[in-house]
Amino acid sequence: MELELGDRIAVTKEGVRREGVLMPSVSGHVVIKMESGYNAGFDPERSAVELVAKGKAPMVPTPPPLPRREGLAKVSILSTGGTIASKVDYRTGAVTSRFSAEEIISSIPELLEIANYDGRVIYNILSENMKAEYWQVLAKAVASEIEKGADGVIVTHGTDTMTYTAAALSFMIKTPVPIVLVGSQRSSDRPSSDAAMNAVSAAAVATSDIGEVTVVMHGTDSDDYALVHRGTRVRKMHTSRRDAFRSINCHPIARVNYRNRDIEVLGEYRRRGEAALEVREKLEPRCALVKYFPGAEPDILDYYIRSGYRGIVLEGTGLGHVASDWIGSISSATEAGIPVVITSQCLRGRVCDRVYDTGRDILAAGGIEGGDILPEVALVKLMWALANAPTVDEAKRIMMAPLAGEISASTPTTV
Amino acid sequence: MELELGDRIAVTKEGVRREGVLMPSVSGHVVIKMESGYNAGFDPERSAVELVAKGKAPMVPTPPPLPRREGLAKVSILSTGGTIASKVDYRTGAVTSRFSAEEIISSIPELLEIANYDGRVIYNILSENMKAEYWQVLAKAVASEIEKGADGVIVTHGTDTMTYTAAALSFMIKTPVPIVLVGSQRSSDRPSSDAAMNAVSAAAVATSDIGEVTVVMHGTDSDDYALVHRGTRVRKMHTSRRDAFRSINCHPIARVNYRNRDIEVLGEYRRRGEAALEVREKLEPRCALVKYFPGAEPDILDYYIRSGYRGIVLEGTGLGHVASDWIGSISSATEAGIPVVITSQCLRGRVCDRVYDTGRDILAAGGIEGGDILPEVALVKLMWALANAPTVDEAKRIMMAPLAGEISASTPTTV
Ligand SMILES: N[C@@H](CC(=O)O)C(=O)O
Ligand SMILES: N[C@@H](CC(=O)O)C(=O)O
Repeated sequence: MELELGDRIAVTKEGVRREGVLMPSVSGHVVIKMESGYNAGFDPERSAVELVAKGKAPMVPTPPPLPRREGLAKVSILSTGGTIASKVDYRTGAVTSRFSAEEIISSIPELLEIANYDGRVIYNILSENMKAEYWQVLAKAVASEIEKGADGVIVTHGTDTMTYTAAALSFMIKTPVPIVLVGSQRSSDRPSSDAAMNAVSAAAVATSDIGEVTVVMHGTDSDDYALVHRGTRVRKMHTSRRDAFRSINCHPIARVNYRNRDIEVLGEYRRRGEAALEVREKLEPRCALVKYFPGAEPDILDYYIRSGYRGIVLEGTGLGHVASDWIGSISSATEAGIPVVITSQCLRGRVCDRVYDTGRDILAAGGIEGGDILPEVALVKLMWALANAPTVDEAKRIMMAPLAGEISASTPTTV
Repeated sequence: MELELGDRIAVTKEGVRREGVLMPSVSGHVVIKMESGYNAGFDPERSAVELVAKGKAPMVPTPPPLPRREGLAKVSILSTGGTIASKVDYRTGAVTSRFSAEEIISSIPELLEIANYDGRVIYNILSENMKAEYWQVLAKAVASEIEKGADGVIVTHGTDTMTYTAAALSFMIKTPVPIVLVGSQRSSDRPSSDAAMNAVSAAAVATSDIGEVTVVMHGTDSDDYALVHRGTRVRKMHTSRRDAFRSINCHPIARVNYRNRDIEVLGEYRRRGEAALEVREKLEPRCALVKYFPGAEPDILDYYIRSGYRGIVLEGTGLGHVASDWIGSISSATEAGIPVVITSQCLRGRVCDRVYDTGRDILAAGGIEGGDILPEVALVKLMWALANAPTVDEAKRIMMAPLAGEISASTPTTV
């Protein structure tokens, strides 16, 4: 039996039979899209597969070339994967999981009112598989779109690690135009999908005056407005809600009214054209984020030292603490030229290691106070600082001063 | 020159002179309490110390024995340290950093209207130094107070790791009476201190009908009400705000109106007397909490496996993911009989590893879905489950079912 992508098939494993549409798979597994909207993968060696009905491939007719309207801004859409890139496939039951600008735009016609688009697929991965070298490729791709004249760039991305990628682009690129990361928490074949509203809001921001790296996602669980978060200040704070993304320790930059696409400014931002394009994409990938927990053995920190890591971000407790028996290992790291940056697992608020004994001991051992930076953002910044500073001491100084809005001298108490 | 605790002294180090009251110190450092309310410690070998004025020790007159009022409930206060235990010292400039029930009560006379108290000092540490064996000693001390007839127990504790200790007591003790953890974010010599309101609210809960382990802390940044959080559902979400403690993935159990001490119930709870006292304080301390980050090498997980850890909680991304190249290490852990419990760094929401490929691979490798449990609570629960279950398989089953309100079958969407 010759199965083709798009065929309706049934897979039986351990007595359980499941039907769905055959999807592409890179894992060697048989992957089907089920009625529920979810995919399931099966080891072909351990399941019986039968054809239920031939698919009517090609299920999505090749969309007509995108209309170009005079006078609209030019926006590049770079796709990296994630749920938002599965949009068209999922809705139509079609089987290509490759995003194309044509496909996303034909499914969200409102986008056409906002800009003319060029699209490129950079990656097609779940964002939990992102890593430093992918951020570098992405940064160069974004920059090349800007060089080619894009008035704004939209990066579609999985939500899981969008925090980290947004931070990476923020540190790597000085941008004259908006660079907007957008994703979706629910794939677009689900009635509650957030993909369309997020994409439209992202396009509004990409054509706006906000010349920064931002994340644009639902602001509430309804379809009323999206929030525009600074790329270094945003965190996924819920596994599944549409309004999972929250600015931490600062106000969002703006909100986008979905109905009329008006942008209401809520905070300071760098304006379009203020900065000239500059890309410094070097990163030191041998950095680690280590979360402290009560009773954690100092050997955990020693492991990173002896394994040749070049920088460590500690996620301590409260104002930035670890147990006293970790102090020796912080000293060892410092002596070995490995910066240890202190952040807090509270996430909100700021580290201050001058209040309690433990904190003062950490500073004496060479720990670097991260201020009100997010632990995840501190990790990415440390990768950047170590690769771009001439010395470790200079990298440490970079960690303590704001580079892309990720730290402030005082944290507003209302966020 | 003979310096005594309580003396006003000046310490000069690298040309900077600081004055303050000489405080006790276990580190061998000279510790002074400065005007700002903060302490500073100095290496005596590298600083010059001079006497400014003799202290009028004993600065706190021994308080009169506590009045006992007929008809009031009997509450035991167990002190473990932290900012709240520094209360009396800091306000008076007195130098004993040992808490005594007499001292705290004489400084907060309202407490006397609520109950009669017995006090014991269990530890006097900053809570970043807590660990599993201290939780065990504490659990036994709490149980012995209940056996001796306490109608409620208050545990004063540093805020840094209160989340973990509250979870530990929740799993270790089935209690017929309220067990209330309370702390303070600001020491009581600061005008904005939250110590008094938190202590009074804790006493109200300790004499209430709420027969559970709870955390009672400020609900807002004002002195209006305190929230009563379930011990397994609460997290410190801000480094310094008085309302740092938040229930995650469930509603707080109640709130305490500070003005009249009325308790307004907000959610379900186990009533006083419903459970008989039972203490199972065994823990497997060789468990680790590992936070995943993009690009993290699978060897990080292997380190814990080869170092003899017995259980691992992964703080994954989104619905509970790690990169595909971690799957092999999860399998290795599983094969070595080391449970790997999957939680999410989003903190809010629930893990669901059946949606995306990565998640399904994690499940196939033996990963255990943590539902909507907090990562920190999962760590403590895993320590408990491994020590109290007859087999690793049984421990895994324990991890998936609620034991003390830490997981629910569905997470309310409004929290
Ligand atoms: N796991 C997916 C989830 C999403 O796209 O929302 C990803 O981050 O790629
Ligand atoms: N570092 C202190 C902070 C506090 O008590 O609030 C502790 O947790 O012990």
